[in-house]
Amino acid sequence: MSQISRGLENVFIKTTSLTYIDGENGILRYGGYDIEDLVEHTSFEEVVHLMLYGDLPTKLQLQRLKSALDEAYEVPQQVIDMIYSLPRDSDAVGMMETAFSALSSIYGMPWNKATNRDNAVKLVARASTVVANVLRAKEGKKPAIPEPSESFAKSFLKASFSRTPTEEEVKAMDAALILYADHEVPASTTAALVTSSTLSDIYSCVVAALAALKGPLHGGAAEEAFKQFVEIGEPDMTESWFKRKIIEGKSRLMGFGHRVYKTYDPRAKIFKKYAKVISERNSDARKYFEIAQKLEELGVETFGAKHIYPNTDFYSGVVFYALGFPVYMFTSLFALSRTLGWTAHVIEYVEDQHRLIRPRALYVGPLKRDVVPIELRG
Amino acid sequence: MSQISRGLENVFIKTTSLTYIDGENGILRYGGYDIEDLVEHTSFEEVVHLMLYGDLPTKLQLQRLKSALDEAYEVPQQVIDMIYSLPRDSDAVGMMETAFSALSSIYGMPWNKATNRDNAVKLVARASTVVANVLRAKEGKKPAIPEPSESFAKSFLKASFSRTPTEEEVKAMDAALILYADHEVPASTTAALVTSSTLSDIYSCVVAALAALKGPLHGGAAEEAFKQFVEIGEPDMTESWFKRKIIEGKSRLMGFGHRVYKTYDPRAKIFKKYAKVISERNSDARKYFEIAQKLEELGVETFGAKHIYPNTDFYSGVVFYALGFPVYMFTSLFALSRTLGWTAHVIEYVEDQHRLIRPRALYVGPLKRDVVPIELRG
Repeated sequence: MSQISRGLENVFIKTTSLTYIDGENGILRYGGYDIEDLVEHTSFEEVVHLMLYGDLPTKLQLQRLKSALDEAYEVPQQVIDMIYSLPRDSDAVGMMETAFSALSSIYGMPWNKATNRDNAVKLVARASTVVANVLRAKEGKKPAIPEPSESFAKSFLKASFSRTPTEEEVKAMDAALILYADHEVPASTTAALVTSSTLSDIYSCVVAALAALKGPLHGGAAEEAFKQFVEIGEPDMTESWFKRKIIEGKSRLMGFGHRVYKTYDPRAKIFKKYAKVISERNSDARKYFEIAQKLEELGVETFGAKHIYPNTDFYSGVVFYALGFPVYMFTSLFALSRTLGWTAHVIEYVEDQHRLIRPRALYVGPLKRDVVPIELRG
Repeated sequence: MSQISRGLENVFIKTTSLTYIDGENGILRYGGYDIEDLVEHTSFEEVVHLMLYGDLPTKLQLQRLKSALDEAYEVPQQVIDMIYSLPRDSDAVGMMETAFSALSSIYGMPWNKATNRDNAVKLVARASTVVANVLRAKEGKKPAIPEPSESFAKSFLKASFSRTPTEEEVKAMDAALILYADHEVPASTTAALVTSSTLSDIYSCVVAALAALKGPLHGGAAEEAFKQFVEIGEPDMTESWFKRKIIEGKSRLMGFGHRVYKTYDPRAKIFKKYAKVISERNSDARKYFEIAQKLEELGVETFGAKHIYPNTDFYSGVVFYALGFPVYMFTSLFALSRTLGWTAHVIEYVEDQHRLIRPRALYVGPLKRDVVPIELRG
């Protein structure tokens, strides 16, 4: 069926000023700034400002943005209760989906150019509260609300683990937040856009994005990549595992390859750097880092010629694990960061290029037939 | 931007054997059967079988399907509790969104050809429970679970209102369920498809669809159309209202016009027939039916030449109102019925033509720039 745009591949659904990807050359920019430059010289809060207000903030703008985040961490009790009332073994992203759906009933409002961006800032803060409490609920701990601190990353880590994180941990979390903040229009962002096109509220757009992210083909990659390292178990076992599973068993090497990048995903290199630093004080994490490094070498040797290289999810799990997060939280951490990209994209869509999204389906079913009444149907 | 497929208009996202629309000639068929034929000679349960299993059921198949529906009405208590814990003035579709998100955590499972259809049947039954209890929560009544009866429509009405509906009411509800069951790939179905493309579970697909349906440009049309009748108030006032609001005020006539139909939406004619019958014993509903009829005449006179005719939402509100539903429930009733189309479409997509949905966005933002450290940004 040549008329069908399968997977909407190469269909341009919108324009954007948010994210530029050059997959041939491994370049990723937010608002024109190289991702490496942003991770090195800015904070997640600055990137929030960049994505929502069009440029990096001045000192005063940053101060205002931080106050807005700090004031929005608190969420109504019934939202926390809902997270805790779900089965403890529920998918973490699914728990976020429920919490955001409730937030939509409580905070959803009509689109308005004067308030859309400020609403998105609050939504990002509330996402931090939701994710910390999904972790806490699943771990059987009491709820905790992030408290104002020097940074969004620090407040989030503190609420998650009830302890003050080190500077290195805060910087690694901050880098992860920046790295996952946006990536143009993958399935989750597309679901958010379709939702925004009916002028549904911004929380419901995030609900749709979470529903899509939950699928194993989208958000689950960091978990899948990391599970390989756990399965391998020891650095020395990497080569035999690779030979047995990937070469002979023809399993897919998880955390490798990307529909857009034909070379190294630039985020993979940055995550590797932080994975190395942050895993230094944790022998388990160190072991997984070493396994990942060996696996990377083997993978590039074998698949590099086919333009298959590590993607952003290859090393991110080592960072999250070293920070203390269970594997089941990796996709929710992606989601926390991506609330920024989702909201920024739907604001762009609704404000500047809005049109109800209504594709077509090509009918290939039975030709006209007449109903035989049930009595005569046997 | 000629490269942008705005609103994905004329982009074919999939093939389907479910629904055929001929917008030029006002034809709508499910699986090859004319919608008029289905409403006249089948029940919603038979259409459930048609959509999910490919043809109308035999007597034995229908009996099995009814048992499957009957057995699935019960939902876990925490789902009911969540509906009741949301603010009572929450959007009814938003409340469904939360309930379905919780159901996703409880009943979501991997896709499997052997069980997908049976899961969809159960989902449709649970939708009935959810919608009845959204109504009951908003009306301040205690929860009630639909109980087995001769028909899905009857069980639903009885749970909604705690009284046994008349045969006429059951038939009108049944017709509405059939009429709204599917309509190819509007925004809500598209959101569900995008979600299914990541292999997220079927409940999360419905969550994404509900999030999209909630927007005023999609699901709200029946409510908007009916609110016009309420605003007009008396049949005699229709002409002056039309002149003032639509002709002189250039307001949009709600319930008229459709991106696909260039003539009468065939569903509008059927809804009109049921609106006439069902409103006979209810003087208020009768009044609104008469207003609608006058408004239809004026609308067709004025806009018919531009191919703008009544759509499915023009008379459906009169039917729902005559059945006893508050206006705020109209979109949820649409959603109850459409759970069938959403699940049938995602099953088709996942089983027969699955591909991760990943369109592109065209970058039009700032060219490469360098980060100026915050200290120097002023």
